[in-house]
Formats: sequence, C-alpha cells, structure tokens
Amino acid sequence: MLNKIAKTVRGLAADAVEDASSGHPGLPIGCADIGAVLYGEVMNYDPQKTDWANRDRFVLSAGHGSMLQYAYQHLAGFDLSIDDLKSFRQLGSKTPGHPEYGWTPGVETTTGPLGQGFANAVGMALAEEIKAAKFNTEDHKIVDHYTYSLAGDGCMMEGVTSEAASLAGHLGLGKLIVIYDDNDISIAGNTDLTFTEDVAARFKAYNWQVIENVDGHDAEEIKAAINKAKAVGDKPSLIMAKTKIACGAPTKEGTAASHGAPLGQAEVDGLKENIGLPVDEKYYIPGEVKKYFAEHQAKLKTKRLKWESEFSGWAAANPELKKAWDKAENQLLPEGLKSSLKNLKIKAPASTRDVSGAVLKEMADQIDYLLGGSADLAPSNRSYLDKYAEIQKDNYNGRNLRFGVREHAMGAIVNGISLYGGFRPYCATFLVFSDYMKPAIRMAALMKQPVIYIFTHDSIYIGEDGPTHQPVEHLEALRIIPGLKVLRPADEEETKAAWLEALENKSGPTALILTRQGLDHLDKENDFWTGVKKGGYTVLSTQAEKYDYTFLASGSEVSLAVETANKLIEEEKKDVRVISVPDRKTLAEQKDFVNKLTANSKKTVVIEAGIGNGWYKLLKGDCELITVEDYGESGPGQEIAEEKGFSVDKIIEKISK
Amino acid sequence: MLNKIAKTVRGLAADAVEDASSGHPGLPIGCADIGAVLYGEVMNYDPQKTDWANRDRFVLSAGHGSMLQYAYQHLAGFDLSIDDLKSFRQLGSKTPGHPEYGWTPGVETTTGPLGQGFANAVGMALAEEIKAAKFNTEDHKIVDHYTYSLAGDGCMMEGVTSEAASLAGHLGLGKLIVIYDDNDISIAGNTDLTFTEDVAARFKAYNWQVIENVDGHDAEEIKAAINKAKAVGDKPSLIMAKTKIACGAPTKEGTAASHGAPLGQAEVDGLKENIGLPVDEKYYIPGEVKKYFAEHQAKLKTKRLKWESEFSGWAAANPELKKAWDKAENQLLPEGLKSSLKNLKIKAPASTRDVSGAVLKEMADQIDYLLGGSADLAPSNRSYLDKYAEIQKDNYNGRNLRFGVREHAMGAIVNGISLYGGFRPYCATFLVFSDYMKPAIRMAALMKQPVIYIFTHDSIYIGEDGPTHQPVEHLEALRIIPGLKVLRPADEEETKAAWLEALENKSGPTALILTRQGLDHLDKENDFWTGVKKGGYTVLSTQAEKYDYTFLASGSEVSLAVETANKLIEEEKKDVRVISVPDRKTLAEQKDFVNKLTANSKKTVVIEAGIGNGWYKLLKGDCELITVEDYGESGPGQEIAEEKGFSVDKIIEKISK
Repeated sequence: MLNKIAKTVRGLAADAVEDASSGHPGLPIGCADIGAVLYGEVMNYDPQKTDWANRDRFVLSAGHGSMLQYAYQHLAGFDLSIDDLKSFRQLGSKTPGHPEYGWTPGVETTTGPLGQGFANAVGMALAEEIKAAKFNTEDHKIVDHYTYSLAGDGCMMEGVTSEAASLAGHLGLGKLIVIYDDNDISIAGNTDLTFTEDVAARFKAYNWQVIENVDGHDAEEIKAAINKAKAVGDKPSLIMAKTKIACGAPTKEGTAASHGAPLGQAEVDGLKENIGLPVDEKYYIPGEVKKYFAEHQAKLKTKRLKWESEFSGWAAANPELKKAWDKAENQLLPEGLKSSLKNLKIKAPASTRDVSGAVLKEMADQIDYLLGGSADLAPSNRSYLDKYAEIQKDNYNGRNLRFGVREHAMGAIVNGISLYGGFRPYCATFLVFSDYMKPAIRMAALMKQPVIYIFTHDSIYIGEDGPTHQPVEHLEALRIIPGLKVLRPADEEETKAAWLEALENKSGPTALILTRQGLDHLDKENDFWTGVKKGGYTVLSTQAEKYDYTFLASGSEVSLAVETANKLIEEEKKDVRVISVPDRKTLAEQKDFVNKLTANSKKTVVIEAGIGNGWYKLLKGDCELITVEDYGESGPGQEIAEEKGFSVDKIIEKISK
Repeated sequence: MLNKIAKTVRGLAADAVEDASSGHPGLPIGCADIGAVLYGEVMNYDPQKTDWANRDRFVLSAGHGSMLQYAYQHLAGFDLSIDDLKSFRQLGSKTPGHPEYGWTPGVETTTGPLGQGFANAVGMALAEEIKAAKFNTEDHKIVDHYTYSLAGDGCMMEGVTSEAASLAGHLGLGKLIVIYDDNDISIAGNTDLTFTEDVAARFKAYNWQVIENVDGHDAEEIKAAINKAKAVGDKPSLIMAKTKIACGAPTKEGTAASHGAPLGQAEVDGLKENIGLPVDEKYYIPGEVKKYFAEHQAKLKTKRLKWESEFSGWAAANPELKKAWDKAENQLLPEGLKSSLKNLKIKAPASTRDVSGAVLKEMADQIDYLLGGSADLAPSNRSYLDKYAEIQKDNYNGRNLRFGVREHAMGAIVNGISLYGGFRPYCATFLVFSDYMKPAIRMAALMKQPVIYIFTHDSIYIGEDGPTHQPVEHLEALRIIPGLKVLRPADEEETKAAWLEALENKSGPTALILTRQGLDHLDKENDFWTGVKKGGYTVLSTQAEKYDYTFLASGSEVSLAVETANKLIEEEKKDVRVISVPDRKTLAEQKDFVNKLTANSKKTVVIEAGIGNGWYKLLKGDCELITVEDYGESGPGQEIAEEKGFSVDKIIEKISK
C-alpha cells in the first residue's frame, strides 16, 4: 500500500508542477516513498487538530520540494483540497512555492532558504526535551514524540546545518530524526562536482547516530531505519536514504534537469506509464489510497484522544504544572509586569547591556517559560540567568542555553523553539554579528515569531576591537527587515520600557540594541513608558514657540544630544528640544505625531552612531546628520567617537554653520 | 632558541594588552610556540618586501589574538616598531585590536569575525593552485609556497569554516596548512560546555589530512607536524595543536578569564617570573632574540632574491606568460573595453541576468584573470563560462569555480582569492541569499577588495518561489554597507554599463543587482554610459519648465516608470520626467546633481520593488513612494507586482490623489 501511495504522490507532484509551469518535481517524486512511510505509517499527527501539543513534528528542510508535503497533507486529511493542489504556486493559494508557516495548515515552519529547516528541527527537538523535563511526571509522559526532518544535499552543504548539527549532537537530542535525501543531485549538476565529503563520517563526528545505505525507495528499509533511530535515545539520528531524483521519469530520473523545473508533459506521461498511473488522468488518486488514509486518520485521531485523556489525568494530578503549562502555551505575561519593572532598582550610570541583564533576570523570575542564551558571549551580553540551571545533555530542565560560536544556528534554533510552542526564547550576540544570523532573523520576522534578540556592543563606542566589531550599518539593516521591532534605549529607564515592549510584542521578533559603555540617567520631561511605546518622545525642551534646534537621537547618543542642547541653551540662549527615538520604525509610522514632535524648528539634527540613510524619512527642511558613514577604527571608544564628530563642541560647530 | 623567542613574545603580548587595558592575552601567550616555529623557522617571507608574490601567506583566523602576529612581525623585522606595540589598540596606531589588511604591513587579511580568516586562507590556497597551474612551467616553478592559518575553537564552530573546509577538501588544496589552537577554552568557558564534536573526525570526513595530538608548546613536534602536512600534496592539513591558553600565567593559565581581558599586573608579573623574563622590564627583548631574527631576516632575503632570479629566468623564457602575469598582478583592463561592450549585440527584451551572462562571457575572453562561480545556482545566475575549463582537484587551470550551496564560504573565499593577488574574482547567487554571505561582503568592503557579486532574482517579480526567495530589504541592506558599490541596471544597455563600472571599480567590491524577468529596451534621451557612472540620469522627459511628476526608479521598475509616464503624457497631457537610478549611492553623493535632476517638479515619485526607506535622502517636497514594505508572496511575478501596486494604473491612481 505504501508503494501505491508513493506512486499516487509522484503523479500529484508531477501534475501540479506541470500545471504551475514552475516548481521542483525532482524531490517530491524522489522522496515519495519516504513521505509514504512518514505520513502513512510512522508519524503521529491529527490533521484536524494541527496544534496538538504532542504531535510529531515534520520539517521539510528542502523546502523547494513543497509538493511532497502538500500532496501528503492532502491525502492525510489536512485542510488542503485537491483544488489547492491544482493551484500550486498561484497567488493567494494555500500551496505556495515553498512551505509557509501560518499559511498552510500543518506546515510547522517556513522553509526554502537551505539549512534553516534543519536548524529549526534541532530547535523543536530541543524544545521537546526541555518541555518533557519540565512537565513529564513519573505517572504521565505527556510530552513524548519525535521531530522528523527531510533534508537534501543543499541543506547538508550549508554552514547553518553544520552548526546546528554539532550542537544537536552535543545536546544528545535523541528524538530528532533527520532523513537525508542523498540523491547526488543539486541544481547545478551532480554533487560530485562540489560535494565529496563523507557526510556519514561528519555526522558521526558530531555525535550523531548515522544509519547508512538505506534504500530510499524501499518502505521496509526506511521503516527499519526509523526504528533504529528511535532505539538510540541519547543521539540524534541521520538516516542516509539513497534516492533517485525524479525516480521513474523516463529520461530525467537521476538528473539535475528534474531538480527545479517542470518535467514537461511527455516526461510526465512517461513517468505515469512507468509507474502504472493512468496517463490521461490528472491528479489521480486511487480509491484504495483514499480509503487507506481515511482509516489511518481515524487511527491517528484515536491516538490523539488517548493522549488527551492522558493529559487530563496529568492535569488533574498536577494542578501547578497545569497552570504553568497553560501560561506557557498561551504566552501569558504576569500581571503587573510594568510595576515590577518600575520597582526594579538600577543605579545609573549603567550600560544598557547591564540594565538589560538585570531586567532579564527579573523577568526570568516572573516568566518561567522565558529561556535562551548567547553565541559564546554570555558574559559580554549579560544574558546568563545565574539562578537557573543550564540546559545540557544530562539535564534538560534548565533555562540557560549555550549556543557556542554558532550565531546562525542560534537564530534558526530559537525559531524552532518558538515555533514548537510553550517557550519565549531569547538569544544574544554582538550587534555586528547579527550579520551572521540575518537569514534566521528574517525567517523569524516572516513567520511572526516573538523571538527576542539581545544585541550588545552597538556602535563605534565599543572602541578597541576596531572596525570588524563596530557595527555601522547594522542598526539600519535590522530596521529595514519587515516585521522586526528594533529598540535602542537611551538609559536605564528606557531599557526597562524596551524590555516591556519586547515582551508584549507577541506578533513578531524584537531586537534590543544595547551599549557596552555606561550611560547617564536622563531626566525626562515626558513619560518614557509611553515614549518607548510610541517610538519617540520629547525628553527635554525649552518650551518655545519656535525652536532653533530639534535633536533626534537614539540610544547612547541621546545623552550627547542632551548635553549639546544644554550647552546651546545655557551658553547661546537657544531654544532647543531633544527627542529620544528608541523605536524609529514605529515612530515613522505615525506621520502626524512625527510632525508634531518636530514642528516649528529652524533646524533638525539627527545624532546616531550609525549609517544615517533611514532618518531622512522623518526630516523636513533644514537638517543635519551626525552619523557614521564609514567604518570605525580601533582605539578607546570615546576617542573614536570624538574623531567621528560625536562631541558637544564638534556638533555645535557643525550645526551652527 | 625558538623557546626563548616564544617566551619573549609572551612577555610582549602580556605587556601590550596590559598597557592597552583591553585585548586578548590568552591566545598570543598560548600560541607563542607555534608563532616561533612559523616566523622563526618555517615560513618564507621578506619583511621588507611584503608584496613578494611567492611569500607564504599567514592568516590569523583567530584575529582577537592579534598581539601574536604583531609581536612576531616586530621581531621578524616588519615595519612595526616597539612603539607600535606599545600603542596597541590606540587610535591611529598600527596595532589595532584585530589585524587589519592595508593598515599594518604584513597583515594578509582582516580578521576578527570568526571563521572569515579560515575561509580567506582557503581562497588564498586555491588562488595559489590556480596561479601555479596557469604560470608554472616545467623549468620554472615560480608559484610554490604555503598558506598557513591559525584558527581557534571559535573558528571551528562557525558554519563558514565548515563550508570552506568541505570545499577545500573537495578541491584537494594540499598547500593549505591550518593549525588549530585546540585549547578547550572560549570566551564563555570551557568548550566542553558546547563543543564536544570530534573535530579530527570531522575534518577527515572533509578529506583533510588531520595531524592529531601535537603538543602546541613543543617546537619540534610542531615542526614535525608541518613537515607531515607538507608531505601530503593533495589534501589540506589540519594540525591539532594542544595548547594551554595563557600558558605560564600563575592562576589564569587554562582558564576563560585569560581569553578576552588583560591578565592584571600581578598575573603578568607572575607569568614573567614563571617563564624567566625580567619582571621589572616591560617589552623585554633579549639581545640574542634580536640577533637571531636579524640573521633569519637575511636568510629570508636571500631566499627571496633567489626567487627573483628564478622569476627573471621564467620571464625571459616565457614572455607571453610574463605579459599575462603583469596584467593580472596589476589588474590591467584591456584597452577599448567600452567599445567592445558597445559592439556586443544583445537582443531586447532580455532579463538583465541574461545580459549579464553574455557580458561576462565577453569580458572573460578579454580579461584572462577574471574568474569565479556560483553557489550552486550557475544556471540561474548565468555565471558559468562555457568556453573555459572548470577548476577541480585534477585541473586547477580553469576559470569556473563551483562553490556548492555554500554562500558564506563563497564570499569569504573570493575575498581570499582577491587578496592573494593576480585575479579578479566574481561570485553569484540569488539576491535574497546575499544575507547568507553578508559578513563576507562586509569584509570585502572593509578591505576594499574589488570582488564582483552577481545577484540575480532581484525582487518580488521572481514570483512563484514566494517570500523566502523574494528579496525585499536586500537591495537597501547592500546599499548601506560602506564601500560597497551597488548597481541595478534597467535594461540591456545599462547592464553593459554596469559591468563596465564594476570592472573599473578597483577600490572596492561591486554588487550587480539583476532581474530574472525580461526587460524591454529603453529609449534614452541621455547617454547611459555617463548616466550609470554618475548613478542617475534622465531617460525621458517632456522638456518642461515645470514638471507635474518626476519619477525616480531603478532596475526593472524604470520600464514601469516610463510606461506610466507615457500614459500621463499622452492621456493626461502631463509634464513628466523619468530618471533612471542604477547607482543610488553614487547619485546621492552629488547633491547639486540630484537637485538639478529633480528640480521644478510638483511631485516626485519613487518606484522600486523593495523597501523605500533609503530614498528619502533624495526627496524634497511632495513625494510618493511605490515600494515594497512587507514580504512578497508566491504566485506569478506580474500578478504579485500588480497586487503590490506595481502597475501603470495603480501608480497613476496613487499619485493623482
């Protein structure tokens, strides 16, 4: 039967790609047997209850093979009709070119950019272990399933996969089963041309169980391999499934030509003939396949209901755990978060990274599903929760993750943790290394995952480490990512408010941009809680009808703006206003508010230690930018800043011209 | 003697970090013995001739250990005085926090962001093989040296290293010798906490020779390992040197505390006492060490002069090769490049990626040191040179590189090739995946390396692949990188001109932003060669005193702007002007020119299928932006574009309000 199912899927995939006149037929056809085993026998899921907490997760890391997932989800009874398959890759359809989380029911994560899915799967498997350690009891194992991922040669070549695989091995994630579609073909040709490493040996080196030489077209072999994988509890498993890309296609089987373009009708017809499908019928599904999945669906539902009753038993026996579970699943924030932040005593001057560290610790006490870590910079990022245990192979019941020097995997793994549910993950590195993890940040934003990024060492002010470590364009680069909230607080109070914003922003990721250097406390003439929420607010003003200068600044440069303003007020009797802009993106969206904040000013001056480009949207009339338009250099931060024009006198000189 | 040298360097490094009150003493002290072997015996270099083509390359991939390199370069006679060491990490000094190419004589590449140096070294070793295959003759082996790199645990964890190592193994780069400072310590603590993979097995899986269990404090063992490495010609070698971080420090040896902060004076004194240096003398260099290096320098000079005479012999015997060598070393462009581009016949409509492919082929014929490849997307990027051989393990004498699905390593490897000298490398992928290689692009810009990036599939117009493959913020993200030239041509003519600009831009990298979809030929009222050079020019205008609309657009949106303009002119009798902006960054730098181009207009309209933020710098008064401010979706490109407001009618509707 699995064989029949696989053939059906080959036909569906070939037809859909052909009708779309675009897409990747090679993988769905080549991996149809693997899919049959997963969806037809091995995986636990309930297509009518896609948020079942204990479902097996499936991640198609080789996202270009989306028709594999769509075809199986259709057969398996997910809310994905045959018409949805027929509108593959069409505008507004449920079957986009690559699987999209939040768009197609049953898709666990958005994939396509290679390696992201693999690392998301690592995050999911890790999240399961943590959740299991946190909630399972001796009597009730309510968290107990597997995370499956199907990865291709492309995924295996990507660095993010290497990083994630190394960490998965280190953490001994035994519930992770990756099936490697080892078909020797990538877009540009045979993998021999560029990829001759010994993948099995490499994964063994990462502390994985590697199950080699599995015939990816033999259901029994695939099942046996999965059982082997399950038998080893303290290592992730890699199943090396030898497949033929576009298996069954008369001339394109085993060739790069089938990877990323429709086969052509003649080839599709030939394929159907070869595998015994009716040539003249599109989207053909034999009655017995339909019947099989109807029965299979009923069985899966029974399993799910059995789990529900187990869960009820657990809940009744463990009311405190159940309360914690509900809070975590629903991402409920404690009451009075703001007032507890208000009450948190922090002495200024303080670097905003220090403040962030103190706030994070306080928040961790109040939100027990908040967890995370740094890419080997915990001491610098102030991101370690000393009071809580560290998540390691021998103890998953902790709050601190250690990602190693693996920024990219860190970003993709926290995406997986967030997608898994029941956690609020944060991760941390230097702002300049946000570059290393940008592809994962983009995926978080695209998937609207409320991940929190702690980016410290936010400008040339870091000093001695020099231009390789001094972010210049990074703040702006983050601001232009659609859906990413970017907050750069100016002192200890704004940092508290920024953390509150980050926690309350559940509809997407938030980046906190923090200083290494100490910042003075700012006296503010307006409420900073509202100010941070709105993105900008007046910190200081001479309350004039018309201002000589309006300063717009963020983060550490707000102090400098205030100092400059004070000198202008005291020594030159000017009318001046300083606006702190912790969230320029949010501020810019409120045109009228921006106009109000900046109205009646002879000159507007922006002070920000980074590329200035993006500020012009907020500016009108005469303006001046004190920004960093080229790379920094090595030296004491204050000296570099002065050289770059960031001093009261240099600013006054420049704006008085 | 090597032992004494190493001790001297330990003292120099400890003193310099202490005086700077910042820096990383652990590595220079821990790897001092390795440095002694390299600079004191093994490596061929001439400190007075740092551009000697056949010098051994040394790349400190663990760039935070910069004092190791500085100390040795001082001892070895490079133009780096003891005062330079004393001003470690000070503003303007020759000894910045991390080694910087073009700043400190003898530094081959800028390092610091982990893994970049490792991958640069792969690029250098690859460049050597290609150059050797191209220029060596049976009688004269003028290219014949080694590339050494010192990498730490952090480098080993980074994905870019994995990608580069896999490719280096595939290509069998036997002249590459990486010494792994296997000290079990990273910033956050012992590497056991996060890095328990079997590095040796992993590198063997990549087809490397791995030389294990080398005592990194025993010069003889290190030398023996290097000899072993040299003995294997068809595999890169990894020497696993066991070292103790901050070796000799009384309490901080072997601890994370010594990684990234000064040891403290007591600890420095203790170190000096332990290793027999005078405690009360800073920057102490024994006379015999000075004498040793003076003699060593003389020996090295003799070697270099011997090579010069070998080179002269080769030049005399091979005048054609010598001519090619000179051209390549000096990056000379052929005469009449522009006219040959003019004469190149390309039929419109054509996608700019197609045009780029045709231009690239033509340029490859004329510039024989132009070479490169794609990250597995050569067919899509139109980046393969069919007429020329492929660079593979069995034949380095080619022009086509295959990077596999390894964007990040690709970026860093082309940096290495460019730094090596004698090549003009290009590389290619989809624009959206520029994210994967951003850290390497930044390094190219920081080091002013004239790498050319071919980024195709440049907007939502790519269609069916959906939001994961549709760049939105990427064009802007590239534009804000200081020193990177970004060109987005609008038709086949501008694409030619853009390539000319890219080739003529030898002072930094250039990114070509190209379409997948076909574009019509544009009739232009001004010379596009000058237009592309200046960054923008008027393509079409009604030659009015005052314009109703001025359109600014780039790439594929210029056609749309022209269409819209024509409709406004014909149907609404408006006065309209269309300005093509292939290089917004260059254009924006010419304020007066921008003012002239956009003067006397009631409304300015920007049309660009990407984030609009950066355009405001060019805008004044009433303006409207037709841009993409959120993610795209899957569907036919034209349909998505229309949905996002990119159609003549929708634009007219929006701007007429």
